[in-house]
Amino acid sequence: MSGRLAIIGLGPGDDRYLTREAEEELSSAEALYGYGPYLDRVPPREGQARFSSGNRVEGARAAAALAHAAQGARVAIVSGGDPGVFAMAAAVCGEIEAGPEAWRALDIAVVPGITAMLAVAARAGAPLGHDFCAISLSENLKPWEAIVRRLDAAASGGFVIALYNPISQARPWQLGEAFARLGRHLAPSTPVVFGRAVGRVGEALTITTLDCAGEEKADMATLIIVGSPETRIIARDGRAPLVYTPREAAEVPA
Amino acid sequence: MSGRLAIIGLGPGDDRYLTREAEEELSSAEALYGYGPYLDRVPPREGQARFSSGNRVEGARAAAALAHAAQGARVAIVSGGDPGVFAMAAAVCGEIEAGPEAWRALDIAVVPGITAMLAVAARAGAPLGHDFCAISLSENLKPWEAIVRRLDAAASGGFVIALYNPISQARPWQLGEAFARLGRHLAPSTPVVFGRAVGRVGEALTITTLDCAGEEKADMATLIIVGSPETRIIARDGRAPLVYTPREAAEVPA
Repeated sequence: MSGRLAIIGLGPGDDRYLTREAEEELSSAEALYGYGPYLDRVPPREGQARFSSGNRVEGARAAAALAHAAQGARVAIVSGGDPGVFAMAAAVCGEIEAGPEAWRALDIAVVPGITAMLAVAARAGAPLGHDFCAISLSENLKPWEAIVRRLDAAASGGFVIALYNPISQARPWQLGEAFARLGRHLAPSTPVVFGRAVGRVGEALTITTLDCAGEEKADMATLIIVGSPETRIIARDGRAPLVYTPREAAEVPA
Repeated sequence: MSGRLAIIGLGPGDDRYLTREAEEELSSAEALYGYGPYLDRVPPREGQARFSSGNRVEGARAAAALAHAAQGARVAIVSGGDPGVFAMAAAVCGEIEAGPEAWRALDIAVVPGITAMLAVAARAGAPLGHDFCAISLSENLKPWEAIVRRLDAAASGGFVIALYNPISQARPWQLGEAFARLGRHLAPSTPVVFGRAVGRVGEALTITTLDCAGEEKADMATLIIVGSPETRIIARDGRAPLVYTPREAAEVPA
């Protein structure tokens, strides 16, 4: 009797981003685990148990779901965005590696979802149209020096940069430092997109430039995209501007 | 009378990756434009016109769809994966910037999709679990020197690296060069995932290490993920190994 654990991406907002595969996995699970606000997005289903937990106990949640699946059940963990991007899939793998041998025998299925940078990019135009990277600004799990190194590498290498987890009450100054650091490599006119709560209540998109980008424009629900030297803004009368990065690179970045 | 152009991501494979938003946009379009194999994934619909074109005429396809929408029609361009990642959304923006003023008045909607690296990562475990980047190896649109700079920046910065467009008949040697370049920064034991045609007929996943990674393992339908120094492989009896990158960075990369 081998159980199954699916780690399901719900996308960043309401059910518009849900894939068919995610819907099928949600409907066939006997038990759902997740951070409360993500579980709340899934309509209740007769006979399906639910186990809600906080957003700082990923390891414990993963272990509980694995232990449940190891009893032979079909279990699912729900995750916002894509479960493989700064989310639950890595936490589950970490628990499997450290846990009992029986957990390695489970059927593990990661169900991809629309991650926040894709949803924000879509709203803005095509800022990720060329080489890009994703960096989490959270210091909880890595030293600030590592983040600075990556900001330097990404900006000097000509990547468009998506910033996840840009700010929180416990980390109020990091985003301002990150913008200042990026300003060493990038022109003040570099386009910057702030996408807040895309696909949810309170959605807001702000398109600005690096010299005007400050931490006051972001909160915990914001995903930020900083352009490369190639990224452009197209003004439109009566419509929001479009931000895009051409697929052609004009030249080797300096 | 203002037309509408939606650029719709179908995901990398069959309709399991289709989002609800994409399904709704597909059903409400009066005309579909796209590369033939992507159009073939969309079931025919009474009264919906179809315009198929080749995979090297993105600009012309975008311009034709924009001109059609400017007549007041609801038009859609279908794209594999996510339209904002090395795909049609940037081509549409480029044509809008260069085209007639009327095109800036159109209602432009980019509908995100599951991009190939998310689908391949999900199959393998969670290799994108920490900071990562996406690089296209296609030289059609940028010089090889720019690609090499970005490979150096990404590997030395400690990013996991997703390689799009790794190889083609016209570009047979670039992938081997890329692996050799990455080998200057990364250990021979660095995990590498080759994901071919994920979600489609002919799907194959190969998990190996950088010292065994060669261009013969890839074709035009392959997406490659090269791990960071933190990326790990979990062996499992009777099951494929899991590849993941922990959310905790152990230390500043050297």
